Amino acid sequence: MNAVLEPLPPAARARLAIRAGEWTGHTSGLAEGHVQGNVVILPAAQADHFLRYCQRNPKPCPVLAVSEPGHASLPTLGAGIDIRTDVPRYRVWRHGELVSEPTEIRELWRDDLVTFIIGCSFSFEQALLDAGLPVRHIEQGRNVPMYRTNIATVPAGPFNGPLVVTMRPMLAGAVIRAIQVTSRFPDVHGAPVHIGDPSLIGIADLARPDYGDAVDVGPGELPVFWACGVTPQAAITQARPEFCITHAPGAMLITDLLNHELASF
Amino acid sequence: MNAVLEPLPPAARARLAIRAGEWTGHTSGLAEGHVQGNVVILPAAQADHFLRYCQRNPKPCPVLAVSEPGHASLPTLGAGIDIRTDVPRYRVWRHGELVSEPTEIRELWRDDLVTFIIGCSFSFEQALLDAGLPVRHIEQGRNVPMYRTNIATVPAGPFNGPLVVTMRPMLAGAVIRAIQVTSRFPDVHGAPVHIGDPSLIGIADLARPDYGDAVDVGPGELPVFWACGVTPQAAITQARPEFCITHAPGAMLITDLLNHELASF
Repeated sequence: MNAVLEPLPPAARARLAIRAGEWTGHTSGLAEGHVQGNVVILPAAQADHFLRYCQRNPKPCPVLAVSEPGHASLPTLGAGIDIRTDVPRYRVWRHGELVSEPTEIRELWRDDLVTFIIGCSFSFEQALLDAGLPVRHIEQGRNVPMYRTNIATVPAGPFNGPLVVTMRPMLAGAVIRAIQVTSRFPDVHGAPVHIGDPSLIGIADLARPDYGDAVDVGPGELPVFWACGVTPQAAITQARPEFCITHAPGAMLITDLLNHELASF
Repeated sequence: MNAVLEPLPPAARARLAIRAGEWTGHTSGLAEGHVQGNVVILPAAQADHFLRYCQRNPKPCPVLAVSEPGHASLPTLGAGIDIRTDVPRYRVWRHGELVSEPTEIRELWRDDLVTFIIGCSFSFEQALLDAGLPVRHIEQGRNVPMYRTNIATVPAGPFNGPLVVTMRPMLAGAVIRAIQVTSRFPDVHGAPVHIGDPSLIGIADLARPDYGDAVDVGPGELPVFWACGVTPQAAITQARPEFCITHAPGAMLITDLLNHELASF
């Protein structure tokens, strides 16, 4: 990388600022238009199971990239990415317990670690907004509401657990358009998994999400549910691998990919 | 056409049987896989208004073809089509009143008549069935339920009236897939126009359709509403043109086009 001689593109610039420790917070709004990814780093022994888990549950776990064991680079997602420094804040887990939240993981790196980058709904939310559709938690300045459902994911090795979904309420006409828009983005959760009655997927009360914040549902609006990238995190919590590193919530990896490049047609 | 020397393709064969008076009933199930069209024939003076009406209301009035004035052929829809003989049963209207239901209209033909062929939901129903999705009225051996809504179409000249919709109930997962499948068919009504609460579009009681038959709605199912080709017929009834010929309900023009050729991607 040649940061001195020529101006860097926005995603690389954001990653360098993060690498330099200048940015340790949420990445929402950084390098706008660029794909951001959920981060899961596992020892190779667990990584094989986890990759099969993702393959079997592509809607909640769309894998954008998998590293070589021990390699900190992710060349398909951006030139010069170093996964040990380029995420603003990490979470380190040992046997399923959160042990620290460092801003870089160089000291923790091992030559058997495999990095997974998993698509995130930020990408399709951009497409929803561009289509003039409402994204209620953004309108209300809240975190997206997330719910554990009674839909089981397909297990692989120790990885297992319920499908977690996000919810965005809309009027029916917007629901139809939102299904069309998000169907174009299979790599970032794609089309919804449910519309309407929350009890049909085991959600007792929309006002009490399991993660994130509740949002207002207007008269005549239908709740629309998308598979959520918290699903693999729930599976990891349940699997209790001896060692695991994830991004801290909201502090994602910023890639060189553009959201619109993920559109399938 | 060379019916003597070589076997005809199924659509042409069906049209010839109809032309010969051998078939005067519904066309459902004939020449399976082929696009069938709603027929509207108007004098040129009204045809200009009607074409603008269709252009302004493409979801209920997707025009597959418009003839030259006085020409009985529709070359883009099939070699050798004669619109005066190739529909099993017609309805003849004068000043908005149904005056006869002949099986051919050669004697009524005028050199100012313009034929419109408008896409029909038969095409997307085939795609729904191929996708393993339920089409309740087919399951129940009934006509599709149709409802006048409180959604106004965009007027053009004397043509005006409410949007008429068809309804097919499904579970939410099937609704999402049905939106994807029918979005591929913009020339045959495309994606739904509404999902869920019928009262939001002015439908008081699903059990009492304005046209067709009621169908059962199962527990947890959402009613899904598509724009319907009865919409232009309602506009014509309201406009009361001095002369008009349509197909009799269910007795459509069979074209050489294949349903899957209408898929937009």
